[in-house]
Amino acid sequence: MASQVDLAEYLFRRIRQVGVKAIHGVPGDYNLTALDYIEPADLDWVGNANELNAGYAADGYARIRGVSALVTAFGVGELSAINAVAGAYSELAPVIHIVGTAPTHVQDGGLCMHHSLGNGDFRIFADMYAKITVAQANLRDAETAPAQIDRCIRECVLQSRPVYLELPTNMVKARVSAAPLETPIDLSIPMNDEGFEDTEVELILNKMYSSKQPFIVVDGCTSRYGVSEEADELVRITGFPTSTTPFGKGIVNEEYSNFYGIYAGIAGNEVYMPWAKGCDLVIKLGPLESDVNTFGFSTIPEPKTSIVFHRDHVVIGGTKYHNLHIKSLLRKVLSKLDKDKLPIYNPSMDLGDPRADLLALPPPGKDDMIDQATFWKRISKFFRSGDLVMVETGTASVGCRDMVLPAHTSLINSCIWLSIGYMLPACQGAALAQREMISEGKRPDGRAILIEGDGSLQMTAQSISDMIRNRLDVTIFVINNDGYVIERWIHGMKAGYNDIQPWRYLEAPNYFGAPKDDPAYPVVTRRAETWGQLSDILAEPALQAGKGMNIVEVMMDREDAPDVLKKLVQTTKRRNSGEPAESDKRQRMSTEEKVMKVAA
Amino acid sequence: MASQVDLAEYLFRRIRQVGVKAIHGVPGDYNLTALDYIEPADLDWVGNANELNAGYAADGYARIRGVSALVTAFGVGELSAINAVAGAYSELAPVIHIVGTAPTHVQDGGLCMHHSLGNGDFRIFADMYAKITVAQANLRDAETAPAQIDRCIRECVLQSRPVYLELPTNMVKARVSAAPLETPIDLSIPMNDEGFEDTEVELILNKMYSSKQPFIVVDGCTSRYGVSEEADELVRITGFPTSTTPFGKGIVNEEYSNFYGIYAGIAGNEVYMPWAKGCDLVIKLGPLESDVNTFGFSTIPEPKTSIVFHRDHVVIGGTKYHNLHIKSLLRKVLSKLDKDKLPIYNPSMDLGDPRADLLALPPPGKDDMIDQATFWKRISKFFRSGDLVMVETGTASVGCRDMVLPAHTSLINSCIWLSIGYMLPACQGAALAQREMISEGKRPDGRAILIEGDGSLQMTAQSISDMIRNRLDVTIFVINNDGYVIERWIHGMKAGYNDIQPWRYLEAPNYFGAPKDDPAYPVVTRRAETWGQLSDILAEPALQAGKGMNIVEVMMDREDAPDVLKKLVQTTKRRNSGEPAESDKRQRMSTEEKVMKVAA
Repeated sequence: MASQVDLAEYLFRRIRQVGVKAIHGVPGDYNLTALDYIEPADLDWVGNANELNAGYAADGYARIRGVSALVTAFGVGELSAINAVAGAYSELAPVIHIVGTAPTHVQDGGLCMHHSLGNGDFRIFADMYAKITVAQANLRDAETAPAQIDRCIRECVLQSRPVYLELPTNMVKARVSAAPLETPIDLSIPMNDEGFEDTEVELILNKMYSSKQPFIVVDGCTSRYGVSEEADELVRITGFPTSTTPFGKGIVNEEYSNFYGIYAGIAGNEVYMPWAKGCDLVIKLGPLESDVNTFGFSTIPEPKTSIVFHRDHVVIGGTKYHNLHIKSLLRKVLSKLDKDKLPIYNPSMDLGDPRADLLALPPPGKDDMIDQATFWKRISKFFRSGDLVMVETGTASVGCRDMVLPAHTSLINSCIWLSIGYMLPACQGAALAQREMISEGKRPDGRAILIEGDGSLQMTAQSISDMIRNRLDVTIFVINNDGYVIERWIHGMKAGYNDIQPWRYLEAPNYFGAPKDDPAYPVVTRRAETWGQLSDILAEPALQAGKGMNIVEVMMDREDAPDVLKKLVQTTKRRNSGEPAESDKRQRMSTEEKVMKVAA
Repeated sequence: MASQVDLAEYLFRRIRQVGVKAIHGVPGDYNLTALDYIEPADLDWVGNANELNAGYAADGYARIRGVSALVTAFGVGELSAINAVAGAYSELAPVIHIVGTAPTHVQDGGLCMHHSLGNGDFRIFADMYAKITVAQANLRDAETAPAQIDRCIRECVLQSRPVYLELPTNMVKARVSAAPLETPIDLSIPMNDEGFEDTEVELILNKMYSSKQPFIVVDGCTSRYGVSEEADELVRITGFPTSTTPFGKGIVNEEYSNFYGIYAGIAGNEVYMPWAKGCDLVIKLGPLESDVNTFGFSTIPEPKTSIVFHRDHVVIGGTKYHNLHIKSLLRKVLSKLDKDKLPIYNPSMDLGDPRADLLALPPPGKDDMIDQATFWKRISKFFRSGDLVMVETGTASVGCRDMVLPAHTSLINSCIWLSIGYMLPACQGAALAQREMISEGKRPDGRAILIEGDGSLQMTAQSISDMIRNRLDVTIFVINNDGYVIERWIHGMKAGYNDIQPWRYLEAPNYFGAPKDDPAYPVVTRRAETWGQLSDILAEPALQAGKGMNIVEVMMDREDAPDVLKKLVQTTKRRNSGEPAESDKRQRMSTEEKVMKVAA
């Protein structure tokens, strides 16, 4: 007879096996006994100040580490986290959400328990979660629980989206078979049909060989599908002009000479979109075609001239070929590619070169106010290879499109969910994942750098406490421009509802209990009102090192915004007032593709 | 032809008409244009730092003011608030939740918009909300919108539970008929069938006249159903021994000599439960029979000896009589009641008298540490008639059961949802409602006093910013006992997961930008480590006045807890491990009542 373990032990050991090292979450009476199994499974407990921050942090951790886990109580706890988990669903972050639920006899009896609505229905919250997770299991049967856990973890990793596990308190110590623990969960990707794949690879290569004006666009799901390296190789080997979407920024090496920054469609420079529309081949990898990521749907390529690589299918010239996993397909394209047959193409016009733009910038006046038009370019000089850069929704995520990233720099932004407040907790999670992976030799050394606005920071400020509690090394730039500036530009430039309470942002470490004068965890707080001050601060050894908690408050004018943002909001304003944008139609059409199915 | 107004104008004028004066919420691009209509409708914008806090605050405001409104964006905004709205549903707080959604053509086209999941489905969030609101409307038709709005507001007020209104951006300026605005929304309660009602009143009165050992239990829904005055009158006129549930505390005047504090069942004193079980008549008003509010279902009266008044039905001796609204029924009972026929009954044993207990307490040692066993009694001396007292879930809400409230003191606690973090934002909302009502002459003068633990405060700390922004007068007692103490007692007394990051709580006004040295908004922060220090602080004129922002950090031992809590958690522990408590069966049985229907 195989040996047995407690159900909670099985669960946390499985989570450890797929690479998670730290569990995010908040304790509650319905999950307390399960938490006893975390440390014995060689996992760390993060202990977040609230569930929304825990959820966001788990998302950030997952984006760096590849998978994460979140523990909450049912009802109150899981609902506080639901916005974060919905965000993980929409932006493809693999989060295993474990919910401690009431004991099964209480649920079955429909008792009027705390954390329930009092109507005896214990399925309501799970029903909500079924809409924003790709797999669910209610672990109320010891016989099937191990297989249920394995199935959910597998779906989480393979689909790169959240899953939902309910653990009733009385099942925590239920004895389950330990046998499956001997074999890792099968995370292999289903093999593509080789003959079919060869045909499509041929088709793709021929389109590449025969193109006159090719273009590669790297989008954010490229990293979610685990093909960042393949994407980088494709860009390097082909030498094709390459851009990223905002969501795809930081995936391929931006130091390649054929890298042209972000393709910003209607919000980009004058020559870029006409040039892109004139390309006879657009290779798009891992698309997320939201209004924000496509600049009002203006950068979606024409179906007839494009090859679009999705997770498990590819769309070539408007025809959809099913059951082709992107990793296998890209690898085969790379292995069969004959470099000599590729066209050599260099754009005749100046599409813009972010690096040249940065070099060409005249030095700012020492006493001049810091401006949105050049801040996002200039801050690039602070970045180093290995850094993790996080930019919050708002002027930061729009501004980041001007950044020039050194090789091996990771960037996290949000390109569809856009929940302000997300990035600070996500930075907690990502910085933790980064620290773990550096110590395991899985990432180069580097700093965790967050840039966010004042309004966003207020949403989730207690994540700074979570960072301090876990002694994370973080550098936070708070753009203090006195309110929700992106919203001022959309509507209500002077309206009171776009104002916020003016905090003393640099007091955060003090309020949140950072140690004072502890050399093991230094705390640095600085305010920059001019370019000269900012330049001096960035040159300080402490900021260069990025150890401990570093907060730099960057003062900017309340009505200043990046030019791209000003252009973008025009479309938003028109659309919100009821006027369909021209490109809205394009987005609808692009979903009506011919479909070619392959026999299974 | 009747005149027309913009849809958003109609909506906010209707909200103003039912008594709301301030709108809680967070701006977002899908609701910005609607916010322009708030000030012209004579409403104030609160401007919360995040949506969960806005939702909690709207709940707190509704509990004092009778109804409230909350504005969020769809997707990210509404999901951040969903825990708060679910709490309002479970504890019967009437909140009108307005969600700014994407324009109708965008929804109909299934566009891949920011704040959506990217799957073209714009109904997902409304589907979630349908489970936790009592009425919903999607305002996409100008013809029907006024009637939809009126219907939802009516249901919100009458059922005392949240409703959900979707306002697409392109409908904000849609022209709708202004005619209905001339007539207030009909909030009248359906009349009871007089003949049927008379029969039941007779039955009730006879049971009261013939009882030998009667008992009144006032529960929290009494105030939700708008019958607090009737309840108070019933207690006063009958002179029957009276207790409240935890949820019902503060509804009836605790200075009556027939008031015996909270009926705490298995967690109460030794003689009380046997005495209560021996009563031949238990009149229970507005019950909420959750595990917490009934002390593990131990205080639910036997059906055969009880009369239980629900909102629209009464259960007499286990038989349910439908279509009898509590307000009409109670008024008729009071008007027909012949005081001379009532039994005169005084319990022969000492059931306990909270006022006597308080008076009998020996003065604490000046240098002694502040203890949970007596803090909740002693703090009562700080309260004055007119005060609004709010106690957060945890040791505070358990401890409050020992409080002795002066007449006309309101108390807010949570007795089923128990979402820690709720009470601080709820205090923002309630303090705002209190200030409005004092200035309108609708409430006596008084202070807003919150008592909560450190762990809870961390969840939603930025509500202190919302309080400062709105210049609210609040006194906050933070119990600093280094972690989640209620959870330590349930499981993991020494476990790291019950620890929290130690904040410098008294730095909050500084961090959140409170004015310095502004006589119009004084800021007082104090720490009490001993009884002597606490006594001195409470005697300060500033604390007595309660103007501006006052924070008192009360240090307590990390393993100290009220005795009631220690008793209570034993049941919780047993139940969570899978062992059904004896009283769980009782709760199930009490729902299986005989039903007597009346012809409509």
